[in-house]
Amino acid sequence: MLVKRVCIVGLGLMGGSLALALRLAHRMALRPFPLHLTLVDTDPKTQTAVQNLADVVTGDFAAGVRDADLLVLATPVRTILRLLTLLPDACPSGCMVIDLGSSKAAITAAMDALPQRFAAIGGHPMCGRETAGFGVATPDLFRGKTFVLCATQRTTPEMAAQAQIMIDLIGAVPLHLSPTLHDELVAAVSHLPYLAAAALMQTASRMSSEHLWPVSASGFRDTSRVSGTDPTMMLDILLTNKTAVLQQLAHYQEALTAVADWIEQGDEAALRAWLTQTQAQHQAYKREKR
Amino acid sequence: MLVKRVCIVGLGLMGGSLALALRLAHRMALRPFPLHLTLVDTDPKTQTAVQNLADVVTGDFAAGVRDADLLVLATPVRTILRLLTLLPDACPSGCMVIDLGSSKAAITAAMDALPQRFAAIGGHPMCGRETAGFGVATPDLFRGKTFVLCATQRTTPEMAAQAQIMIDLIGAVPLHLSPTLHDELVAAVSHLPYLAAAALMQTASRMSSEHLWPVSASGFRDTSRVSGTDPTMMLDILLTNKTAVLQQLAHYQEALTAVADWIEQGDEAALRAWLTQTQAQHQAYKREKR
Repeated sequence: MLVKRVCIVGLGLMGGSLALALRLAHRMALRPFPLHLTLVDTDPKTQTAVQNLADVVTGDFAAGVRDADLLVLATPVRTILRLLTLLPDACPSGCMVIDLGSSKAAITAAMDALPQRFAAIGGHPMCGRETAGFGVATPDLFRGKTFVLCATQRTTPEMAAQAQIMIDLIGAVPLHLSPTLHDELVAAVSHLPYLAAAALMQTASRMSSEHLWPVSASGFRDTSRVSGTDPTMMLDILLTNKTAVLQQLAHYQEALTAVADWIEQGDEAALRAWLTQTQAQHQAYKREKR
Repeated sequence: MLVKRVCIVGLGLMGGSLALALRLAHRMALRPFPLHLTLVDTDPKTQTAVQNLADVVTGDFAAGVRDADLLVLATPVRTILRLLTLLPDACPSGCMVIDLGSSKAAITAAMDALPQRFAAIGGHPMCGRETAGFGVATPDLFRGKTFVLCATQRTTPEMAAQAQIMIDLIGAVPLHLSPTLHDELVAAVSHLPYLAAAALMQTASRMSSEHLWPVSASGFRDTSRVSGTDPTMMLDILLTNKTAVLQQLAHYQEALTAVADWIEQGDEAALRAWLTQTQAQHQAYKREKR
């Protein structure tokens, strides 16, 4: 059974959806379980919006976490890092901590440094969107989605079990990875796609024709979609996953340079081989992802 | 009223959807109009699949176009160019010609070179998909979508009128552009997005971890979607729209290089400004596209 006193800090898409999902699971449970939900957000509008979900709503981190059994940090990554340094003073009796941040090496290192009275595990649900805030939160965000867990030196058996229970309640699928492997993988399938989409939006926006958007269709819409992502969240990701992101960017630039050369030289054979391989990779991805 | 004898060459997503849309419009018309539909495709399976739609099905271009009033060329771009050189011999009495190809300068130049007994206009419906073939064709593909028209030296008033009638019948929205502007715009919003998606698929596929696809989510799925595009179609596009594509690629790589430098140097201010501008551009696009 989930511990009773859960505190979620940051009620955006992730934290807000988690609050909705836990409250829904609590209200619909076949086997009732107690849930005392404290929601922490510094935005007054968000505080108002989550009133009906929460037992306590506050903008004060220390007040919110003081009596928590399970603390969920759902802010941008560098705010999570800052809150982890404040936690020992804010929560004298200790608690269990999980986060929902998009890079994991920096956060799990900060969790390793927590005093022994804290138990902690890194978390990352793979269900981001380009829209942000409690207004787009939904209780079924996590359903069927991969929820990465990264063990730390503070991961106790009880911590791992509570993470598993929470993931079950919200319908996600746990996947245990090392922080390093997580960060390398998301650099390729999440952070690089953002940069690819963002550079595309920047490039297209240079065109001054009024006909640009009428001519654009679903290809541009989908390829550029994640360029709408919140800048603060993205900045924290890029700066805390620098090495892996730069490596993926280098591979990406290499591929683009090769293609540009083949187009320039009219190297039809090389171009056709690359295009054919790309389509095969897309088909393999679709097959394996299904 | 649409001319009676329509011949569509190439029954893939575009040509197949056009055949379905015209046949549906013909069968459902409040004011009945005659339609004799000749469908030309070299693939025997496609020939079988389109039997019920067509008055005549053939794999022979010359036989198909001989008596056409309106010829629609819906093959990959370089096949369109080749068919345009065969057309004068194949159709001694002349006809009207429109194409559905993805680049326009080369095709409209070839149309300019047709004998005077031909009327011709370049066309490009902005509703591509990453899937190909008659199996994915659908009569509502064009509904509400922009259908670019590029006038040529062979564009007669009757040709322009017939293009307009056809576009009305399939529910699309015509937009007249010069071939050069069309090719520059689609380089930015269609051909570059393809290359961005393809390089992303290539880069991610370098990772050998079994956990790569489980960790990937909707961001990767959408950003990489068009990497599944048919290689032959894409090859023709890249080779016939070389200048504009290379220019957009250069802008794109410039943007990526700048971002990589800022991440490398930890230039938070520059990075934040770029991320914020990108999100604003995405919001402007969403606003203007609606």
